Amino acid sequence: MTAALFNGKPEAGAWIRARGLHYGDGVFRTALVFDGNVVDLDRQLAKLASDARQLHLSAGVAACRRDATKLARGQRRAVIKWLLWRGAKARGYRPASATTERLVMIDALPARTPASWTRGVAAFRSPVVISEQPLLAGIKHLNRAEQVLASIDWPRGAMEAILCDRAGRPIGGTRSNLFWIRRGRLYTPQLSACGVAGVMREKVLEVAQSLGIDWRIDTLSWREFATSDEAFLTNSLIGIWPLRSCDRHEWRAPGAFTREIMRHLSHPLVPA
Amino acid sequence: MTAALFNGKPEAGAWIRARGLHYGDGVFRTALVFDGNVVDLDRQLAKLASDARQLHLSAGVAACRRDATKLARGQRRAVIKWLLWRGAKARGYRPASATTERLVMIDALPARTPASWTRGVAAFRSPVVISEQPLLAGIKHLNRAEQVLASIDWPRGAMEAILCDRAGRPIGGTRSNLFWIRRGRLYTPQLSACGVAGVMREKVLEVAQSLGIDWRIDTLSWREFATSDEAFLTNSLIGIWPLRSCDRHEWRAPGAFTREIMRHLSHPLVPA
Repeated sequence: MTAALFNGKPEAGAWIRARGLHYGDGVFRTALVFDGNVVDLDRQLAKLASDARQLHLSAGVAACRRDATKLARGQRRAVIKWLLWRGAKARGYRPASATTERLVMIDALPARTPASWTRGVAAFRSPVVISEQPLLAGIKHLNRAEQVLASIDWPRGAMEAILCDRAGRPIGGTRSNLFWIRRGRLYTPQLSACGVAGVMREKVLEVAQSLGIDWRIDTLSWREFATSDEAFLTNSLIGIWPLRSCDRHEWRAPGAFTREIMRHLSHPLVPA
Repeated sequence: MTAALFNGKPEAGAWIRARGLHYGDGVFRTALVFDGNVVDLDRQLAKLASDARQLHLSAGVAACRRDATKLARGQRRAVIKWLLWRGAKARGYRPASATTERLVMIDALPARTPASWTRGVAAFRSPVVISEQPLLAGIKHLNRAEQVLASIDWPRGAMEAILCDRAGRPIGGTRSNLFWIRRGRLYTPQLSACGVAGVMREKVLEVAQSLGIDWRIDTLSWREFATSDEAFLTNSLIGIWPLRSCDRHEWRAPGAFTREIMRHLSHPLVPA
């Protein structure tokens, strides 16, 4: 007996039952398409599958790969996004289906200024305090209302908002992971209570390791970050953006360690 | 240049951009349809509009009413659900459109046993700890991954899971508000840091007020709840279900106060 009106018009598409829409009961991932290929495709798919598993979802990696490859073909620069959500069988929160639904989209890559890489970007500390849910921490699930709230009313010129937990410790940007360097050691926040662990975060740590740069994943104070020697943001689309300021704090951007990591990241948009 | 594959097939519907799906950037509400009418329609629409406002969304109440009235016509017993989300203009978290999209659905009412009202239901304390986000507390937004997680693996016979905050204080059920009575006073948890405030919660407090029952909205310990004299659950579909047990705690169900409130609730499914 299900019937539905979408913006006032009868709608019978299967999507109206999507648990991704009704409950955010799914995961996503965004990747760069460059010269017809999805950058870091294997890593992206591995992370998609592992995030899905955390919600007891099966990702169907082969199908995700096939769709992405098909959409990326012939695209010079683009963004690809996978969304997976649990199939719906009945009303209500309780998962009743073992199936997964899959939406794979390709879109234009947003225009960027080269200066974001060569001279760094400005960020600010968001007034939105990120909530803590260890059961969902680290994964890219579809519950992103906090990130939306934190994306409203940015100061002029800001390219990212840095979110803190309720103890005031930096967790990351709304769409990026956060790193800083202090006395030669690389730090990035622990994401066991909140935050999202990106593929680029993992890659940066591997690059640091290969370069012999000491690194640590830890929960540290705002002060530790704000008084650091260098800082930068990462995600799959930008690779690395050096931070040149966050509120009143300023850094040389890119700093020497950041430049070294950028050089070895082999991301197609990051100048070597 | 947007292109998309939904479960492997080309998909061009506008829904693929829905910010409700991508970010949970919207609100919803569920109501009972009885003999062709939406029960408490004015209250439901008022709450929908106020929840939407909290996300800086305009609900379009007149259109929501029109759609619901149309779908409810001729339906003896059903469930109606409104979903509203922010219109999409560009990729990314930042709201870029002042428009709202609207999905209104009607579904069969789940079958219930009369004993749930006349002899009460069993609940249990969920191992899922609800996260705290004052900016989203109280409203029915589309970020419901916690409720999904809390709806998995229920003990046999349980009809609801009671969620607590990280201090172990009861907040409510996965799909219901929680009340209890202690020494003649009615209590329901404060929802300023987490939880969802239902229309039926508001009605129960009004009924208590009109009956001269003392009531209080407060943040109280699990022990206060577990050692109470009576307890019950509310939502728009069930009205009131008396609680007869939660883990090892047992109550007479329905207790005298609960029965009095049920009698005056004028909900079509609650026996008077």
